[in-house]
Amino acid sequence: MDYNKLALELHKQYGGKIRTNLRDDTALDKDRLSAYYSPGVGAVSQAIEKDNSLLREYTWTNNLVAVISDGSAVLGLGDIGPKASMPVMEGKAMLFKHFADIDCVPIILDVHSADEIVAAVKAIAPSFGAINLEDISAPKCFEVEDRLKAELDIPVFHDDQHGTAVVTLAGLINAAKVVGKNLSDCKIVTIGAGAAGTAIIKLLSKYGVASLTALDSKGIISDERQDLNPEKDALRAYLDTSISGTLEEALDGADIFVGVSKPHLLTAELVATMADDPIIFALANPIPEIMPDVAAQAGVAVLATGRSDFPNQVNNALAFPGIFRGALDNGVSTITDDHKLAAANVIANMVENPTKECVIPSVFEADLVKNIAASIK
Amino acid sequence: MDYNKLALELHKQYGGKIRTNLRDDTALDKDRLSAYYSPGVGAVSQAIEKDNSLLREYTWTNNLVAVISDGSAVLGLGDIGPKASMPVMEGKAMLFKHFADIDCVPIILDVHSADEIVAAVKAIAPSFGAINLEDISAPKCFEVEDRLKAELDIPVFHDDQHGTAVVTLAGLINAAKVVGKNLSDCKIVTIGAGAAGTAIIKLLSKYGVASLTALDSKGIISDERQDLNPEKDALRAYLDTSISGTLEEALDGADIFVGVSKPHLLTAELVATMADDPIIFALANPIPEIMPDVAAQAGVAVLATGRSDFPNQVNNALAFPGIFRGALDNGVSTITDDHKLAAANVIANMVENPTKECVIPSVFEADLVKNIAASIK
Repeated sequence: MDYNKLALELHKQYGGKIRTNLRDDTALDKDRLSAYYSPGVGAVSQAIEKDNSLLREYTWTNNLVAVISDGSAVLGLGDIGPKASMPVMEGKAMLFKHFADIDCVPIILDVHSADEIVAAVKAIAPSFGAINLEDISAPKCFEVEDRLKAELDIPVFHDDQHGTAVVTLAGLINAAKVVGKNLSDCKIVTIGAGAAGTAIIKLLSKYGVASLTALDSKGIISDERQDLNPEKDALRAYLDTSISGTLEEALDGADIFVGVSKPHLLTAELVATMADDPIIFALANPIPEIMPDVAAQAGVAVLATGRSDFPNQVNNALAFPGIFRGALDNGVSTITDDHKLAAANVIANMVENPTKECVIPSVFEADLVKNIAASIK
Repeated sequence: MDYNKLALELHKQYGGKIRTNLRDDTALDKDRLSAYYSPGVGAVSQAIEKDNSLLREYTWTNNLVAVISDGSAVLGLGDIGPKASMPVMEGKAMLFKHFADIDCVPIILDVHSADEIVAAVKAIAPSFGAINLEDISAPKCFEVEDRLKAELDIPVFHDDQHGTAVVTLAGLINAAKVVGKNLSDCKIVTIGAGAAGTAIIKLLSKYGVASLTALDSKGIISDERQDLNPEKDALRAYLDTSISGTLEEALDGADIFVGVSKPHLLTAELVATMADDPIIFALANPIPEIMPDVAAQAGVAVLATGRSDFPNQVNNALAFPGIFRGALDNGVSTITDDHKLAAANVIANMVENPTKECVIPSVFEADLVKNIAASIK
């Protein structure tokens, strides 16, 4: 299937992917218009003016998420700018609707500094019930999310960080079961210290993994490194920073490799230096750090990638619909680490008997969204 | 009918008035998801990156208006703030959908200075095909609209100004016909120099009305006035500023009174000082400057108000759906004075044989939106 061709055709045919509709299907006669708009709507506005919490009762904000991006780190395409990012954000809005029946509006931002992004999002925030930050480049994404979480009273969730981390953790929980290891005791090596890599490290640490080694493009994030930006410097609190060097040094005896980095970076020779039954999450997209055939020959016990045409797809759509469904339904104003751990456990438990070929459930699994939503409270 | 009660009931029952839906009704299988989202959507983003004009071909922005307010001048309720304004803005989004099949998103702003509003709207502007500013208080509404029109490449239209002006002009064109006068030759007095009053004066002047007198709460805007803010000072270019004083002096011999001011301000005694067959547009809402029974006794030839329960309702919903429908369909990036005049003429012409009781068509008139849209090009 040529997805590029089909994508261009469908987008042209339908002129986009989402629309607005009226909630009330009843014909809008003069009386109904006078209740939904002037003069009747004035009574609704006055009720909200007296009690702001009624905003959720009387307006669509109760079921509304904004997907917000400045287009600075879109898919594998990089900094393509806000306009070019719109199809991706509108696609995300489609996924919100399709998987969780959440109304969703894509907002693309024509500003790019952390200060400007924070100011713009704060200005429009009362319009929405929750905010999904999307495809904003590291390291500014960290500052943007931290400040918005602190300053807004609605959930703010950067999916590239936390959605990826939740699904990765879910997959690793099951992969460890498959090889009969305890995930907390595993030695885990991650490579790629951007949005996703950083969030994966923090969530694995929160889960209880003690031995975490992380690499960026310059090598192991160790005590010796003098070239780290503030975000990577802060990441050392979660890591075993006593060893330094390259991926070769890091992988020696490791149980698990998690890559959010570059194609073909993990060779069979490197896999051979890992512990027995190595688990590989090769999440670079569309070309993973190691291809399935190479991994199989190298004796990889469990392989997960970001691709839908290989087994074990780490797909954010497994997590964010249920997490936002739960946050909106249960009046959760901050999505915490505990929520992320709960969601990861729910996703892991959707696979009753994990196998090498199935450590991660399908996004089409019944009750997935409902079960995650119930855990976000 | 108790519209307040019905409004509270309906808003509670439906939890708001609008929702998002998918454009494509086909079941979303794995292939279709792979075209609408990753990996296929990347080709659409790359096409837009190369040619920004394709944003309109491939995304919902081709049919999307944002209704934006800071909640500083909402209906007759005043400065009730963004959250309390949301039901009104969502109601406007409902009208856009209902009357013109335009997708519409209400955006309420938690910032209030002209600079901050302009910055926020500019930041999110690429997300939309057009912008309807709503219920922003004067005089900042003038600066906000002027700057956004100058700096953005999509239509920006402050409906409280121009929608009201267009429908008022349409009604006056027909009212003049009813009494056998030429509108351009009429002596017109307006009272209320906020958003609506200012736009009415400018559009009447553009139409060709030579004798225009305007009052604010302190009296006639004349050459003598030393207390005018910059916006009212600039308004003098459109006015006969040689006379000064109160409404009494202004109305002497006037053909037409247009009020966007205060209840019961126009008495039968004042009407008696006007020319024969006086035309009164008493648009204060919900209580007009003169009630129909008083106007009838005073010999008013044509009375229009803002109310749906009296004849001749000056209702913005007659204008904005068609104006935006036309702007979106015809690729119009700036809504000009000529567009407003064209729309007013179309609305006036929808009434084949104007009478005292019918100078303004109903919002439910067939072809109204289509005919206006055809004139916006």
